[in-house]
Amino acid sequence: MSTEYGYGESDSWFARAERVIPGGIYGHQSPGLLTRGEYPSFTHSAEGCHLRDIDGNRYIDFLCGYGPIVLGYNHPVVEKAVERQRKLGDTMTLPSVRSVELAEQLVGMTPSADWAMFAKNGSDVCTWALAIARKATGRDLVVMAEHAYHGVHGWCNGITAGFPDSDRTTIRPVNWNDSAELEAVFDGQGENIAAVILTPFRHEAFEDSVMPADGYLERARALCTQHGALLISDDVRTGFRLDMGGSMQKWGVTPDLLCYSKALANGHPLSALLGTEALREAARQVFVTGTFFLGAVSIAASLATLTEIGATGAIDHMHAMGLRLCEGLAERADTAGLEIRLSGPPSLPYMRFAEDGDGFNRNRVFCGAAARRGVLFHPHHNWFLMAAHQKEDIDEALTVADEAFAAVKDAF
Amino acid sequence: MSTEYGYGESDSWFARAERVIPGGIYGHQSPGLLTRGEYPSFTHSAEGCHLRDIDGNRYIDFLCGYGPIVLGYNHPVVEKAVERQRKLGDTMTLPSVRSVELAEQLVGMTPSADWAMFAKNGSDVCTWALAIARKATGRDLVVMAEHAYHGVHGWCNGITAGFPDSDRTTIRPVNWNDSAELEAVFDGQGENIAAVILTPFRHEAFEDSVMPADGYLERARALCTQHGALLISDDVRTGFRLDMGGSMQKWGVTPDLLCYSKALANGHPLSALLGTEALREAARQVFVTGTFFLGAVSIAASLATLTEIGATGAIDHMHAMGLRLCEGLAERADTAGLEIRLSGPPSLPYMRFAEDGDGFNRNRVFCGAAARRGVLFHPHHNWFLMAAHQKEDIDEALTVADEAFAAVKDAF
Repeated sequence: MSTEYGYGESDSWFARAERVIPGGIYGHQSPGLLTRGEYPSFTHSAEGCHLRDIDGNRYIDFLCGYGPIVLGYNHPVVEKAVERQRKLGDTMTLPSVRSVELAEQLVGMTPSADWAMFAKNGSDVCTWALAIARKATGRDLVVMAEHAYHGVHGWCNGITAGFPDSDRTTIRPVNWNDSAELEAVFDGQGENIAAVILTPFRHEAFEDSVMPADGYLERARALCTQHGALLISDDVRTGFRLDMGGSMQKWGVTPDLLCYSKALANGHPLSALLGTEALREAARQVFVTGTFFLGAVSIAASLATLTEIGATGAIDHMHAMGLRLCEGLAERADTAGLEIRLSGPPSLPYMRFAEDGDGFNRNRVFCGAAARRGVLFHPHHNWFLMAAHQKEDIDEALTVADEAFAAVKDAF
Repeated sequence: MSTEYGYGESDSWFARAERVIPGGIYGHQSPGLLTRGEYPSFTHSAEGCHLRDIDGNRYIDFLCGYGPIVLGYNHPVVEKAVERQRKLGDTMTLPSVRSVELAEQLVGMTPSADWAMFAKNGSDVCTWALAIARKATGRDLVVMAEHAYHGVHGWCNGITAGFPDSDRTTIRPVNWNDSAELEAVFDGQGENIAAVILTPFRHEAFEDSVMPADGYLERARALCTQHGALLISDDVRTGFRLDMGGSMQKWGVTPDLLCYSKALANGHPLSALLGTEALREAARQVFVTGTFFLGAVSIAASLATLTEIGATGAIDHMHAMGLRLCEGLAERADTAGLEIRLSGPPSLPYMRFAEDGDGFNRNRVFCGAAARRGVLFHPHHNWFLMAAHQKEDIDEALTVADEAFAAVKDAF
């Protein structure tokens, strides 16, 4: 059995953090969402698929910064482009031509897109998409999947603390994968619906991932077209791990508006909204802006990232490595006499224990034990593959998983 | 008379941009907000206070990226810190300790702050401040100055295209500097008011800037305290050009929540929300997050930026240089027989022509003529000083201003 990691430095920095940051670390990176005490809290550095924490412990990282690291940390091709642009300038009084080049690249590779615009957060571009849809249709109502997560604007999620009810009066939630309900909503309120916003598959935290049922995305597409509403694909989390033309292309569905962020620039802060010719004028009329939206460094990083993903077959590689990981986990869990539930596509997999029911107790033990032995999984959030993951990393992770499965057997 | 610049490359890139980006360039950088044809559209690079456009023309820049460049473009101390952190990592699965260090630094230098949290846009932290105020008070209503600009969330500004009316049902606009109206609103609805959000002075685009009237900010502070509401300072545009402890300190006013962005990291994308001990628990309970919010590179840039501003007396220097610019403009306009209106503090000045009335025709000619001769001013938006501006830059700009005033005389 390998030696387990200690987190003395993480703990002492966390105590400092708690004095000056509410909760110490907030949001999706907060220790409360992992298993406080069983995980490190702060990184020192990262390279390839490896992350080193502030205690000097080394991990194979299957969270990829919660998605953005798609090629690998500190990727030489991306960072060379970054360094070149950084010396020229990032946010300047006038934009750089990098934004034109990236818009051209995205439009060229995306069947649904005739234009692109850039921002900083996924939430920015999902909200921007709604605004364009409302402007284009003259309607207010937006249909989204119940409890789906599209960001942190007031309408974007089911977490209401601090946000007035009025932020959600123009939102109509529907059950994911329920085509009949979607049809009923369009039958009743079709003339008021500006847009349907969906992720390509359902990947909410604290749930198994759920792929779209046969015909579900196609039905959503057809209903939107029929009723003059727009289909928005929130590809923020999933983009560039399933299909370079937008993840819904995997199901043959072409959205009107397509939201990217996370993997778009291999960890550099950027998001993008892509749309069709028919929406160009509405996009021009909605005033949205941000000080750093056209910062050239992240845009240069994105140009290099997208080219590299395409040139190296990274999507196929992540699929193959994810499959190796999932098949290995299934086999080893079976040997250990544990029933696991794997969900989501191999490049964004998620694993739970059948015996946890709706809870996560076994998964917390499993992920904590894996962390203590050098592998970062997450008990409540889907995982991510990156192109830097190689067979030997997967196999090393599976060896650790053996010990983590044993820890679950010991604990329950 | 100096040779006027040409914009052939800018124009040809703009034609390319228009094909793949709605409007070519959008938001605050859009040519429509300057004077299309009289300005360059794209930058090549920037260094110190100088910007070079894609045609190779060189400018003294008084827009500073619309605020973020406070020390100077490509500042050696900041960029050294950036380069060091970039090699370690930016957005990683766990945050870096840079976020703890920056929170400590901000709390240490800010009378009103016991904690800090980070995001990417000014709009993010202003909206986050509202959520914390609503959570802490259990109230929904927020008072803001009519037509004030706090970002691009639905509630943030008076631009409604694409945003449903419901985004503003919990917003009560009041006239800037009208203490009596503010009192009346509190008299009528004090028990429903979660917060008052104000900029330290009024600096809307397409208007003269307006400093707070004697006692106005103090009265807002007192009314909030008296009625159990919170005072939010939107220091996004003004921060670190007036007072290192927050701009309202210049008027002796301590807000409950303080929003920073723009100059916080000398052009690297970052915003921060600072708050008091009493609001720590509410801040912890409101779930707000973003993939890139704790990216370590921008945070490292901010640590270096704030230290450098403090150590070099940059605020006093910007004040002195802004004063030299404003006094020079007033003197030269007078000599030219033109009446100008200067408003705002010297480090964020704004200039218009009295004879333009509510319009901007002379200012567009003036700013266009200045651009063609190597100085970037803005006809509709306040200007910014940076620490890199030296006496000789100001004097060079004033020489150009002479020619631009002459162009106004010629045109009208």
